[in-house]
Amino acid sequence: MADHHLGTAHIHTVWDHALPPALTVRPGDTVTLDTLDASDGGVARRVATGDVEAPPDLADVIARSLRAPRPGPRGHPLTGPVFIDGAEPGDALRIDLLSVEGAEWGWTGCRPDGIGLLDAALGAEGLTPYTHIWDLRARTHADFLPGIRVPLAPFPGVIGVAPGAAGPHSTSPPRHVGGNMDIRQLVAGAALWLPVEVPGALLSVGDLHAAQGDGELSGTGIEMDGRITLRVNVEKGAGLTTPEFTTPTHGGSSRRWHATTGHDPDLMTAARLALRPLLRRLQARGLTLEQAYVLASACADLKISQIVDAPNYTVSAFLPLDIFVNG
Amino acid sequence: MADHHLGTAHIHTVWDHALPPALTVRPGDTVTLDTLDASDGGVARRVATGDVEAPPDLADVIARSLRAPRPGPRGHPLTGPVFIDGAEPGDALRIDLLSVEGAEWGWTGCRPDGIGLLDAALGAEGLTPYTHIWDLRARTHADFLPGIRVPLAPFPGVIGVAPGAAGPHSTSPPRHVGGNMDIRQLVAGAALWLPVEVPGALLSVGDLHAAQGDGELSGTGIEMDGRITLRVNVEKGAGLTTPEFTTPTHGGSSRRWHATTGHDPDLMTAARLALRPLLRRLQARGLTLEQAYVLASACADLKISQIVDAPNYTVSAFLPLDIFVNG
Repeated sequence: MADHHLGTAHIHTVWDHALPPALTVRPGDTVTLDTLDASDGGVARRVATGDVEAPPDLADVIARSLRAPRPGPRGHPLTGPVFIDGAEPGDALRIDLLSVEGAEWGWTGCRPDGIGLLDAALGAEGLTPYTHIWDLRARTHADFLPGIRVPLAPFPGVIGVAPGAAGPHSTSPPRHVGGNMDIRQLVAGAALWLPVEVPGALLSVGDLHAAQGDGELSGTGIEMDGRITLRVNVEKGAGLTTPEFTTPTHGGSSRRWHATTGHDPDLMTAARLALRPLLRRLQARGLTLEQAYVLASACADLKISQIVDAPNYTVSAFLPLDIFVNG
Repeated sequence: MADHHLGTAHIHTVWDHALPPALTVRPGDTVTLDTLDASDGGVARRVATGDVEAPPDLADVIARSLRAPRPGPRGHPLTGPVFIDGAEPGDALRIDLLSVEGAEWGWTGCRPDGIGLLDAALGAEGLTPYTHIWDLRARTHADFLPGIRVPLAPFPGVIGVAPGAAGPHSTSPPRHVGGNMDIRQLVAGAALWLPVEVPGALLSVGDLHAAQGDGELSGTGIEMDGRITLRVNVEKGAGLTTPEFTTPTHGGSSRRWHATTGHDPDLMTAARLALRPLLRRLQARGLTLEQAYVLASACADLKISQIVDAPNYTVSAFLPLDIFVNG
């Protein structure tokens, strides 16, 4: 059970199973990955040089990122890929999130031209580009304005494995193999299962957020550079169709939740894609399909995890695990 | 400040502002309303006559309800309407939910032909009609199967005022004046604001659920007869466009939440309809539109409250009120 480290020298900006692995590990190993924010770390660097009083404009940050001298289409800077020995198509990669740490500064932005839920076609009247810089040094919370304090709960905005289809694929939409899911419940203590489609799985991580609401309404969470430590394992022949996870972070009625996810241009379809595997989890405990469906209706929650990562939006269905009295 | 009571002799099954008020009250008064379940109380009656071992089939329950000798189109049995003195179009009706109590038995059903998220066109293969009877006598929880226990948190599935447009209107879809919103956070302790469109507002309530997940996946919560007590007040010229509420029930990061709602056939549109009033709440505290948007992106949650009440589906946006350090 070795511990590995991967720094920001190992960045890629597309999903492509032809990319050479940056690291090879074994099941049971832990990996610590350093990650850059969605602006290639530009905000943190700018704050570090004393330019805090003039927060960067999001459009400017993005424009500068677009000029980044990297090969291929420009996407989120992802750290990886990590090749996991023994992972084969049809398996599930289990990822235990052991710790998620962030930088001292982060940013959240908005713009009127199609990056958030308010878009130019439907209700962005009066909206101008804006970027807010957050001081994250208190770790547990960040002040927004005097009297307004947001709790922090860092998680990776992007975590996924390489699609089986030949690439390159954009990092923007999440897929059935994960990616830019922006699921805020993937905090330290969560466990994520991803369908493996290529030998070695080829795991990559990036775009850490210090906090975010379900939906990521403006198209950005609290974007930051960071460091994440995870343990990887392989579950053979799991037959997973979509990412699933367990998490301690959702709500008051249960200490832990099992969630399934759907990713689709249509939110109704995404919800249906999430529902079926949730029912399968209940059927695996001996319930009939009908019992599973009725029980889910009585206690499972549907959340819009992200409504901004076009063309795929993410619905997560959460089952409260405390309903199982004997665990 | 008088206390009133309205029994199940005062049931209507459509929204229509031409319906005569069953009761007239003043702002500040409390009203206790007895309500029937979505099957007209059929399940409770059947259980009371000793037929528990043979749970009614949902299709049968619905078919029997359809034969109920009531005038007009068949919908949810609603108790009301309550005329609130002084409520005028353009005002908001504030409803404080003081208590929500249920019967001793409830039911949750599913069927393959279009009442739940799994519908015949998209993935109901293998699903047969099924109705589960719940024993609710423990009050705080209900056992589903041995080892599976669901917490109870009763709320009204339907709560709304009469639309300004001439009726009758179906009770199935919720609207900008409320109705069949199926928002599980409307528990005792919540406060709901509804836009008033006709003199007296004409409030009606029904379809209490002992519990339900966000989404109401199978099309039914834990359906039950019940009794609800609320206090009504009028906020003049509030300019409300859609139902909003505060609630103590959502999740761990805040003790209380302010939520806004959108109701539309398209979930993306419903989310946009919910977002704008949420931003207005923040702008009313002095934030710019851009600050409001960015802050919401960092901490507000999008939930699918119901995905089954065709043709309108409900998205709620939840703002954690604990972010306001000074209240």
